[in-house]
Amino acid sequence: MPAKSPVLVDLKFDPATVAKSLETAFADRGSINLADPASKGIDLSHVDYALLWKPDADLFERAPNLKVIFSGGAGVDSMMSIAGLPDVPMVRFVDRSLTVRMSEWVVMQCLMHLRDVQGHFRNQRQHVWAPQHGPEAADVTVGVMGLGVLGCDAAAKLKVMGFNAIGWSRSKKEIDGMETFDAGGLDAFLARTDILVGLLPLTPDTTGIYNASLFSKLHRNGPLGKPVFINAGRGKSQVQADIASAVRTGILGGASLDVFAVEPLSADDPLWGLENVIITPHDSAVSDEKALMRHVEEQIARFERGELLQHLVDRSRGY
Amino acid sequence: MPAKSPVLVDLKFDPATVAKSLETAFADRGSINLADPASKGIDLSHVDYALLWKPDADLFERAPNLKVIFSGGAGVDSMMSIAGLPDVPMVRFVDRSLTVRMSEWVVMQCLMHLRDVQGHFRNQRQHVWAPQHGPEAADVTVGVMGLGVLGCDAAAKLKVMGFNAIGWSRSKKEIDGMETFDAGGLDAFLARTDILVGLLPLTPDTTGIYNASLFSKLHRNGPLGKPVFINAGRGKSQVQADIASAVRTGILGGASLDVFAVEPLSADDPLWGLENVIITPHDSAVSDEKALMRHVEEQIARFERGELLQHLVDRSRGY
Ligand SMILES: NC(=O)c1ccc[n+]([C@@H]2O[C@H](COP(=O)([O-])OP(=O)(O)OC[C@H]3O[C@@H](n4cnc5c(N)ncnc54)[C@H](OP(=O)(O)O)[C@@H]3O)[C@@H](O)[C@H]2O)c1
Ligand SMILES: NC(=O)c1ccc[n+]([C@@H]2O[C@H](COP(=O)([O-])OP(=O)(O)OC[C@H]3O[C@@H](n4cnc5c(N)ncnc54)[C@H](OP(=O)(O)O)[C@@H]3O)[C@@H](O)[C@H]2O)c1
Repeated sequence: MPAKSPVLVDLKFDPATVAKSLETAFADRGSINLADPASKGIDLSHVDYALLWKPDADLFERAPNLKVIFSGGAGVDSMMSIAGLPDVPMVRFVDRSLTVRMSEWVVMQCLMHLRDVQGHFRNQRQHVWAPQHGPEAADVTVGVMGLGVLGCDAAAKLKVMGFNAIGWSRSKKEIDGMETFDAGGLDAFLARTDILVGLLPLTPDTTGIYNASLFSKLHRNGPLGKPVFINAGRGKSQVQADIASAVRTGILGGASLDVFAVEPLSADDPLWGLENVIITPHDSAVSDEKALMRHVEEQIARFERGELLQHLVDRSRGY
Repeated sequence: MPAKSPVLVDLKFDPATVAKSLETAFADRGSINLADPASKGIDLSHVDYALLWKPDADLFERAPNLKVIFSGGAGVDSMMSIAGLPDVPMVRFVDRSLTVRMSEWVVMQCLMHLRDVQGHFRNQRQHVWAPQHGPEAADVTVGVMGLGVLGCDAAAKLKVMGFNAIGWSRSKKEIDGMETFDAGGLDAFLARTDILVGLLPLTPDTTGIYNASLFSKLHRNGPLGKPVFINAGRGKSQVQADIASAVRTGILGGASLDVFAVEPLSADDPLWGLENVIITPHDSAVSDEKALMRHVEEQIARFERGELLQHLVDRSRGY
């Protein structure tokens, strides 16, 4: 039996964490970590599998015989735009822990807007006792844009917490106890939505989709007074100047943003200081390197047993 | 058929809201609102039912023939200490909306400590981009003290969000998929608990129960570094000086408090300004007056049909 092909790893994550998780991963076949100086100039022509995030520009030239590409992230927009990307199956990262963490963040942000946490914190800083009598979750409709792995889990948990969750996706979904809309139903979906949660992948269709025109179609005079925008998909799906001006002019009552068109968000960006805008530094659902390696091991095992790969990217749709 | 006895109402809540909700409540029998100047000196000797919260000192003298007393709140500690309280059945307020709101607050506070929202807000105020890689909910054990109406609902929702929820109550509970402890198992329960959630009624046994000795028994060096204390039961169950010093000395990593020994919390109380202490002004689960009236109507109807009253207070236990 010929030796198994090692896994080529080029992950522009924290190098120490990647190196540490590779110590125990891929025990049966080994790995080639391009971040390791020893890998400089090494022959990659025999390599079957590559696990990549923002790989070197010459990677696909150096490794021309890849059979499967694994994305180090759940979103593959940055992978799709790499020059010279070969036409082989691409698997994205889907992981229980990542999904659960994203739902923690989404549910927490929705509750924080429902309960006016920012207003409570302002009162606390001034030592002011001022009970609020806001709506309960059942009075508030959360519209989730994107009903994939992340959107479905978040919507189900929002429902358990009492929110009225509705959802929107390209193709119509049948989900028990939840009203859903397809691409053509966007305006009807927005007109019902008090809190909009964005969990869309970045594609040509979703670039700039969260803009002034969309915000103006959200439910007005709802139980929270003004609609709220929450985004944890990708930053380039939002027009940041439109968010800032919608918050300033009261088209939006608030926002929670984990992703930005350019990251890190520049220190002089106006979004940092806007009332009722909550900024998190793309840490809503951090990829766990150990889980990533386990996921790649599982998919390689499936592939070598002749089974179908899971979480395959559809190149024509872009996600 | 004799006229039905009107319901005597003495609720020291917002008078306008009470008056408004009485406009439509008790349509078949009417009500006597003691906050209404027209009720001054009126004969109450014929009244069967009273709905009370902090009633006038002479109320039970003026209404000596009550058959059932309804508490305007879920907790009855203040009712139990009223001089001259007659020995008739007392029904406390239990309501779907109140329960759901409490769970919103509890789950939100647990998520905010899990995700270090205070640290994120500090970074945001300084325009600092600093992603955090904390534990996920499944790594964290939330110990719920009090497994009544509120504790059970909160624990179930904490589990859905991924937390490892465990519970403690006077008598042992059998709850599917949840480890529970009875009164005697307190130390074992505390030793497992990373985030302590207090949802106990105030009784002689629970007065001052959240004190330095109890905090010192919580799980140390857990996934959050230090244990967190959350209380939405009653303020007199906590020793506030002990909370402040436990936070200052690092016995506790943080706290969320909705209730206080004296309310409103005094403007010069040190708790307002302590790092990682979140103060809410007893608005975690506001009683809705309309729901309260509906609940009393339902219980009176049961009583008059000869059925058992629900949510009866056990005088010997004090809740
Ligand atoms: N902030 C973070 O830390 C973080 C972490 C992980 C992931 N993410 C982002 O979250 C995104 C979603 O992840 P996922 O795993 O849930 O993806 P997924 O399973 O591929 O689901 C994508 C969903 O978006 C819908 N969609 C895509 N394009 C659409 C369009 N043009 N119009 C309407 N609906 C459209 C899809 O509709 P169909 O169902 O009809 O295909 C699907 O429901 C990822 O792509 C990534 O960018 C962010
Ligand atoms: N902050 C707010 O806005 C707000 C709103 C509503 C209520 N509350 C407070 O929350 C409290 C709980 O409400 P609830 O409806 O859940 O009450 P409940 O249904 O009566 O449940 C009380 C729970 O506490 C347990 N318990 C009582 N004394 C105990 C003791 N000495 N040792 C151990 N466990 C003990 C009981 O044990 P057993 O099951 O063995 O009896 C029961 O599980 C209320 O009493 C009220 O003070 C606060």
